[in-house]
Amino acid sequence: MAKPSTPQWTHKHLLGIEDLSVGEIRMVLDTADEFFPYAAGRKPAPQVLEGRTIMNLFIEDSTRTRTSFTFAAERLGARVFQFHATTSSLNKKESLADTARNVEAMGLEAIVIRHPERNAPHRLAEAVRCSVLNAGDDSHEHPTQALLDLQAIRRRLGRIEGLTLALVGDVRHSRVARSNLLAHSKLGNRVIFVGPQVFLEDLDVQAETTTDFDAVLPQCDAVMMLRVQFERHESLVLNIDEYVRNYQLTPARLARAKPEAIVLHPGPVNRGIELTNEVADGPRSVILYQTTCGVATRMAVLSLCIGALERERACNGEDTLGQEG
Amino acid sequence: MAKPSTPQWTHKHLLGIEDLSVGEIRMVLDTADEFFPYAAGRKPAPQVLEGRTIMNLFIEDSTRTRTSFTFAAERLGARVFQFHATTSSLNKKESLADTARNVEAMGLEAIVIRHPERNAPHRLAEAVRCSVLNAGDDSHEHPTQALLDLQAIRRRLGRIEGLTLALVGDVRHSRVARSNLLAHSKLGNRVIFVGPQVFLEDLDVQAETTTDFDAVLPQCDAVMMLRVQFERHESLVLNIDEYVRNYQLTPARLARAKPEAIVLHPGPVNRGIELTNEVADGPRSVILYQTTCGVATRMAVLSLCIGALERERACNGEDTLGQEG
Amino acid sequence: MAKPSTPQWTHKHLLGIEDLSVGEIRMVLDTADEFFPYAAGRKPAPQVLEGRTIMNLFIEDSTRTRTSFTFAAERLGARVFQFHATTSSLNKKESLADTARNVEAMGLEAIVIRHPERNAPHRLAEAVRCSVLNAGDDSHEHPTQALLDLQAIRRRLGRIEGLTLALVGDVRHSRVARSNLLAHSKLGNRVIFVGPQVFLEDLDVQAETTTDFDAVLPQCDAVMMLRVQFERHESLVLNIDEYVRNYQLTPARLARAKPEAIVLHPGPVNRGIELTNEVADGPRSVILYQTTCGVATRMAVLSLCIGALERERACNGEDTLGQEG
Repeated sequence: MAKPSTPQWTHKHLLGIEDLSVGEIRMVLDTADEFFPYAAGRKPAPQVLEGRTIMNLFIEDSTRTRTSFTFAAERLGARVFQFHATTSSLNKKESLADTARNVEAMGLEAIVIRHPERNAPHRLAEAVRCSVLNAGDDSHEHPTQALLDLQAIRRRLGRIEGLTLALVGDVRHSRVARSNLLAHSKLGNRVIFVGPQVFLEDLDVQAETTTDFDAVLPQCDAVMMLRVQFERHESLVLNIDEYVRNYQLTPARLARAKPEAIVLHPGPVNRGIELTNEVADGPRSVILYQTTCGVATRMAVLSLCIGALERERACNGEDTLGQEG
Repeated sequence: MAKPSTPQWTHKHLLGIEDLSVGEIRMVLDTADEFFPYAAGRKPAPQVLEGRTIMNLFIEDSTRTRTSFTFAAERLGARVFQFHATTSSLNKKESLADTARNVEAMGLEAIVIRHPERNAPHRLAEAVRCSVLNAGDDSHEHPTQALLDLQAIRRRLGRIEGLTLALVGDVRHSRVARSNLLAHSKLGNRVIFVGPQVFLEDLDVQAETTTDFDAVLPQCDAVMMLRVQFERHESLVLNIDEYVRNYQLTPARLARAKPEAIVLHPGPVNRGIELTNEVADGPRSVILYQTTCGVATRMAVLSLCIGALERERACNGEDTLGQEG
Repeated sequence: MAKPSTPQWTHKHLLGIEDLSVGEIRMVLDTADEFFPYAAGRKPAPQVLEGRTIMNLFIEDSTRTRTSFTFAAERLGARVFQFHATTSSLNKKESLADTARNVEAMGLEAIVIRHPERNAPHRLAEAVRCSVLNAGDDSHEHPTQALLDLQAIRRRLGRIEGLTLALVGDVRHSRVARSNLLAHSKLGNRVIFVGPQVFLEDLDVQAETTTDFDAVLPQCDAVMMLRVQFERHESLVLNIDEYVRNYQLTPARLARAKPEAIVLHPGPVNRGIELTNEVADGPRSVILYQTTCGVATRMAVLSLCIGALERERACNGEDTLGQEG
């Protein structure tokens, strides 16, 4: 498992961008680029996780992230156990930690967790011995999303430094925005949060903000449109017509950005709200390309983190279940 | 992937029997016969889909068709991703096309779709680049069912021409009846729709019809009993006692058919309504045999359609994800 | 499939401990010990079920048993089809036997069934030709649980005879208690059912019972705490405070048992009710170890039963689907 090219990766968990150095971010991207040709599953990938088992523990609904981790793990030879919270002994009031420890005792390399509570992955990481990968905790972190966005940017623009990015829309409720801000700040890029005042209030991070999208567009190398998360708004009232008028990315508005600027969106897209069909499906959109990078990035993260877990186990002299001998 | 014996298969999609020539129907059956020995999964099949991914996109409930496609794909070496509409971003109002395109960007060879709307598979096929296989759209088409019925008939009766078939019961709501009628009409067979008047009204196909089951039985080489689809009846009122008296296939009634005539049913059977236990489990029933043929037929369809997709990709110079280079 | 070391295993089904001889119980444990090193999936196991398909047919919710059978089957090379009763044609009122026979016709080696009705697995075994493994029928039997408990006991204590065991708590509603009682009675061990009077009434088995936990503890080699199954209690009223006071396994109470005595629990644990965290996570607890043994035991059971099925098929001259030739 320990690849010669990555002797220095030491994290068995990936809980947040917060924990990664710039060198480690680059290491993920380099590894993801190595895996990119295998991401589509047409060319057999190195079976570095052959026979291993990964658990997807999604307490919040997700199609794309769950699917992406599933495809990534399977293409490396692993089996993926989909834990369905509703059809499980969570009904019988067992704690998440007990459930996870229990499945871990059946042989598990990693748990991919999405959870509506902030830091739930961090608490889980203290309860188990296998790898824990954060697939989104509340509006806190979503590290693999930021990493796959970086891979898409680097492969399309050729660099991940000296950039100006606009993150547009519902930044307040977005773990995607938060993880991207952390990553680009480490890389020395300029990140501008753009949106109506209601989305710029009460941010729990330090960020440059503006309500004037048109003013910042000419400086942008990349424009990341965020999904309006109506389901998280509760009492917040958004004037949709006004939002669309001021923040929807249209062909006319996109024409104001740098000629080589690209358009990202973490999905799912609310077409006709965050952007028009012309932009979503146009030549400067990398939305589907992000999805492809997502598989490669998650192959990289699984491979690196489980590699670190393997080295930890080897140091501890564990070679079977680690429970005997 | 391109098998020497099937250079002429050109459809990457299978949307309906409507699109197939007689030669193509025979090509599916010949290929299905080649796969038959591997259908049970005891003898390792040629891994023509090794490492590939297939998505089951069932918006309508199904056990047997979904399972059959799953087993077929897995036995060819593919992994099957079960898309659950209820636990997905369909909740977030993303369109089916966007969801499908997104998973496709993660690497997908084919989407098997069942949908309550007529022509939904056809619309999906325009939205994606991978293969689309229709597993039932409303009461329109269910092409693999007609093909597996044909395989069962050919293997049992030795031929698929010069036949007379009765399709009995709820023909009005049956995509199975419709796809079978299309197939047998192309093959020059005589198909008779049999049932009470309420089921023979408002048909959207041209078919010979009769309310007198007993009169046509002596001419039948195959009797295909259809499931009474109570869940689709809405305002339609069916007198069950009368239905059973006139249309239930009993041993006495079956004795009127040709001595070698076989009994088919697409399942699930309403025992005691469409047929009695003696007939369902008797020597002339091929009901379970149809199920076995279903796996072989779907192995054939997957192999042929994805083979055509591969050739299309090769022509386009795509060899990785088709999104770069 | 037929391993030289197990020529004498003749059961293609595992329906209950009731059907096993002492020699057969030992044969399962010996085979489970052979599989133990592969249970975690890190070391590739002999692929004795390569390409085969197993169906999990769980009509009652379960995380751990379903997961355990899934991991066991997959590590032997099989694919596992998860049958979801709610997303299936059970909705269309097809019988369980018809559904099972139908999937069997697609190629199936074994059905793992959990069902709320007593003897449902036995009835299923009469309807199909493949192996049927009982994963729990009402409060009747749960044979693989008793076998995995035995494996954990034998690996920890070094023997499975000459033992005294307390089964503590909700014995009345427990198939775990029932299967363990049957197994230990066959092995000549002393089993004591311990609990408040409400749990000791109306037992459908002959067992030594007591309400005085503290009195029997000093004689115990193993203490098996049972989950209080609140969901099965209906009109039964349990005074929880009193229950905790008299039956909760605390460090103080555990100190009364033999020094080498171990603590078992089938899970999921109601922490703070059946036992305290100190005991659940303490050095004498084998709770997670039971889980690990569960995978090894189920690998053994799958391998043995499907081996017997293979020999039956060979005797019958079946080598493909068993439906032709």
